[in-house]
Amino acid sequence: MKFITFLRNDAEHLGVLTADEKEFVDLSEAGIAPRMIDMIKGFDFLREPIARLIANGSRHSTSGLKLLAPIRTPSRNIFCIGKNYYEHATEFGSSGFDSGSVGGNEVPEYPIIFSKPPSAVVGPHAGIASALDPYSSVDYEAELAVIIGRSGRVAAADDPMSFIFGYTIINDVTSRELQKRHKQWLLGKGIDTFAPMGPCIVTADEIADIGAQTIQLWVNGELRQSASIGQLIFDIPTLIRTIGSSITLQTGDIIATGTPAGVGIGYKPPRYLVPGDRIRIEVPAIGILENNVL
Amino acid sequence: MKFITFLRNDAEHLGVLTADEKEFVDLSEAGIAPRMIDMIKGFDFLREPIARLIANGSRHSTSGLKLLAPIRTPSRNIFCIGKNYYEHATEFGSSGFDSGSVGGNEVPEYPIIFSKPPSAVVGPHAGIASALDPYSSVDYEAELAVIIGRSGRVAAADDPMSFIFGYTIINDVTSRELQKRHKQWLLGKGIDTFAPMGPCIVTADEIADIGAQTIQLWVNGELRQSASIGQLIFDIPTLIRTIGSSITLQTGDIIATGTPAGVGIGYKPPRYLVPGDRIRIEVPAIGILENNVL
Repeated sequence: MKFITFLRNDAEHLGVLTADEKEFVDLSEAGIAPRMIDMIKGFDFLREPIARLIANGSRHSTSGLKLLAPIRTPSRNIFCIGKNYYEHATEFGSSGFDSGSVGGNEVPEYPIIFSKPPSAVVGPHAGIASALDPYSSVDYEAELAVIIGRSGRVAAADDPMSFIFGYTIINDVTSRELQKRHKQWLLGKGIDTFAPMGPCIVTADEIADIGAQTIQLWVNGELRQSASIGQLIFDIPTLIRTIGSSITLQTGDIIATGTPAGVGIGYKPPRYLVPGDRIRIEVPAIGILENNVL
Repeated sequence: MKFITFLRNDAEHLGVLTADEKEFVDLSEAGIAPRMIDMIKGFDFLREPIARLIANGSRHSTSGLKLLAPIRTPSRNIFCIGKNYYEHATEFGSSGFDSGSVGGNEVPEYPIIFSKPPSAVVGPHAGIASALDPYSSVDYEAELAVIIGRSGRVAAADDPMSFIFGYTIINDVTSRELQKRHKQWLLGKGIDTFAPMGPCIVTADEIADIGAQTIQLWVNGELRQSASIGQLIFDIPTLIRTIGSSITLQTGDIIATGTPAGVGIGYKPPRYLVPGDRIRIEVPAIGILENNVL
């Protein structure tokens, strides 16, 4: 199933797409759940009623639909992973912007984990407020994001994949100068509007092999990033286990799994985003996330 | 005023201390506000009714009171500052645990900003679950924390101090091995129970000069940290402006301002915390935060 959050009569609604994705059912209107997080919490019980609504419920056209971020306000910061594709680890390490790099081997021994605050989240087609980076060093990072369903700590006997509800796309927009100057990345990564998310959350059962999915990013139609999710240095189960061993996972937690090679600072000189740029990210099983730079 | 969050009949209540701090008024019972965050949001209107309740309201003894963290579940991660006292910057830089250090000048040019998730927060006298650090490298960090009252972005003309509601104490408990291995500090700092907070929030108007306050920490009665808040490398207005220029501040946001010299890894060999240790932090104008290590 593909779940969406959208605006209807100025209010946030939850919806689910039909198989051809040309229509959707309004799950808030149907009384299923007001918001994505409530639905995820009750999904074991709601799955069947939702399936029936998809088959028999009142449908609306997705044409003209105003999508919001699937989880508009996460209840804590988004967990994000740095330098998690080999070629990107090398391009970032040699860019001069990696304050943690001391030359030599740029591939991390352990996952690099930082966060983006909920206030950075915006939805599909929302603008990225580039003026909030005082150094005009705004860069894109296409990332697959994992949405946690099951809460709790990940014990040794647990299958980390059983904690996943589904997947979405995040653009881990970054001020490279703030990222470099402040050494820890929260400020450079946490700016208002610097976490575009969407277009939907696809449930894990819809994707037979997430590692076989590709992720691609275009700026103004030019392909900049293209990789297979299977190329992650630390795979999804490893990330979930690493975080969840010491930090209790919560339903609705988001883990952005890292970006592949091809970011703006991989070029010499760097190719930063400028107002008017259009960024498009696609993961075939999830959809397309498009945003423009303000 | 000094505000507390406490447990009464298994429910979270909000209270305010009387002048001698031997008694308190139950503000939840009085209908003022159910939780700290609601009170802070409405403080401009609530200040006078609360003052009247302190003078004339029904009082309870603080003896035997079960305190909780003043803000039990922040609505996003706590903003934390690293290496913000000169001597601590040097002791950490030379400890071998600072992945960002490349030798030489250990004093940061810009504030180092990272975060701790809300799930790490515990209250006074709660235990610190040291077993969640797989490397038994748990360390303490006494810190003054700023509580944001006014929401919004900090504009050039704004006085950053006008965004402050009050102050509390945070122990920025850290797994030094996870902090070092994972380079970005979220995991080493974000472990469940690794953010003891309290005992109260004191309003900013009660402290004429926060820089004149001292912060001290004892482990099992031995003084380990002792500094003046005025020794911060980046002072409180600078921290608020740095974060709030790009990230919209929210009522109830928490900024932990950094720790002074004397942490466990400042010793050779490091003196890590072990089960049974008792940690006591005091800032005279705020009070005492005590926790034990499990």
